Amino acid sequence: MAAPIDFYFDFASPYGYLAAEKIEPLAAKHGRGVTWRPTLLGAAFKVTGGKPLPEWPLKGEYSKRDFLRSARFHNVAFHLPSAFPVGTVSACRAFYSLNSEKDRVNLAKALYRAYFVENVNIGETENVLKVAAALGFKPDLNDQALKDKTKTEVEASIARGVFGSPYLIVDGEPFWGFDRFDQVERWLRGPF
Amino acid sequence: MAAPIDFYFDFASPYGYLAAEKIEPLAAKHGRGVTWRPTLLGAAFKVTGGKPLPEWPLKGEYSKRDFLRSARFHNVAFHLPSAFPVGTVSACRAFYSLNSEKDRVNLAKALYRAYFVENVNIGETENVLKVAAALGFKPDLNDQALKDKTKTEVEASIARGVFGSPYLIVDGEPFWGFDRFDQVERWLRGPF
Repeated sequence: MAAPIDFYFDFASPYGYLAAEKIEPLAAKHGRGVTWRPTLLGAAFKVTGGKPLPEWPLKGEYSKRDFLRSARFHNVAFHLPSAFPVGTVSACRAFYSLNSEKDRVNLAKALYRAYFVENVNIGETENVLKVAAALGFKPDLNDQALKDKTKTEVEASIARGVFGSPYLIVDGEPFWGFDRFDQVERWLRGPF
Repeated sequence: MAAPIDFYFDFASPYGYLAAEKIEPLAAKHGRGVTWRPTLLGAAFKVTGGKPLPEWPLKGEYSKRDFLRSARFHNVAFHLPSAFPVGTVSACRAFYSLNSEKDRVNLAKALYRAYFVENVNIGETENVLKVAAALGFKPDLNDQALKDKTKTEVEASIARGVFGSPYLIVDGEPFWGFDRFDQVERWLRGPF
C-alpha cells in the first residue's frame, strides 16, 4: 500500500474542517490512508507574518461569506462559531495524548464538529475535555511530556513548510487549501 | 440577457491569467458576458496590509510550485516570468485607453500571454507599448485624463471590496480566486 497522505490542519480552521469531512473517502478511493497532524497556525504565522483571516481588512469579511458558501457547496454542515478564531493548543494536546490513529481521528472529528456545528468554544480547555470525555478519553493536558510532544509536532510541521490549513503532503508534493482537493485527486492517480 | 460578470484582476497575477484564459467559455455557457476590470493589487495591499505572494516566507516558495502545477492541471501554457511580480500600472493604463470591450479584452489577453508565456516584462512601459502596437493600438500612457481614469477604476475596485486577483462579482456575489470557478459555475445556474 502506498504511503499515507499527511494531513496538516488547525482545529480553528474552517477549511481544515471541510477537508476533515472529505479527506478519508478521497484517500480510500485511491488506496491511501491518512495521517492526521493537527498543528498551530499561530506558530506558523510567527514565521510567515500571517494572521487569522478575520483580521484582514476586506479579506476578513469576504472569508466569512466564503466559509458559509463553501460549506453549502460541498454539502457540509457548518455554523460560524460565536468565538472565532480561538487558540487550539488544548485541542492539539488532547489529540496528541492519544496513541491510536483511530482514536485520534475520532477525537479530531468530534472537536471539529463541536466547534463548527454545535458552536462549542473549543478554545476553552474545559470544553475540549468534555468532547474528549464523551468519547471515553480523559487526557491530562497539563502533563509536561504531552506539552513537549505537541510542541515538537508543531515545530515539525513548520519545518516541513506548513503555513496554512489544510495543508496536505502526498508523496512529497504539498497542497495548500481545501480548494486543492481536485489537484490532490489527480495527483493520487499519478503526478502531473 | 443577464448582467455580465465583473472580472477583476491584476496583470501580474498568475491566477488572474489562468482565470483570463477560462472565464469567457464559462460565462458564455451560461449566457453571460464578462466585463474585464484590471486593477492594481498594490493599491489594495495598502488597505489590507497584504503583499505579493513571493514575499511571504514559506507561502512564497509554495506558491511558485502551485502556479506551475495549477497551469498544468488546467492545461494552460505558463512560464514563471524572470521578473516577478512587476508593477502593472502601464498595462492597466493601456487597457483603459481603449474604449471597445473587444479591443480591451484582446489587449488584456495579449499582455497576459506576453508576460506568462513569452517572458516579456510587462512591468516596463516600452514592452506594454510593443504589445499594444502589435494589435494596432498606440495609447498615450502619459495622458493625464487616462491616468485619472485608471486611478478611478482602481479606487472603485477597492470600494467594491476587491483585495485579490482574480476576483469575480456575479449578480452581487463575490468570488475570490481561480479556484472558486467551480462555485461560480454553480452560482451561474442559480444562487445556492
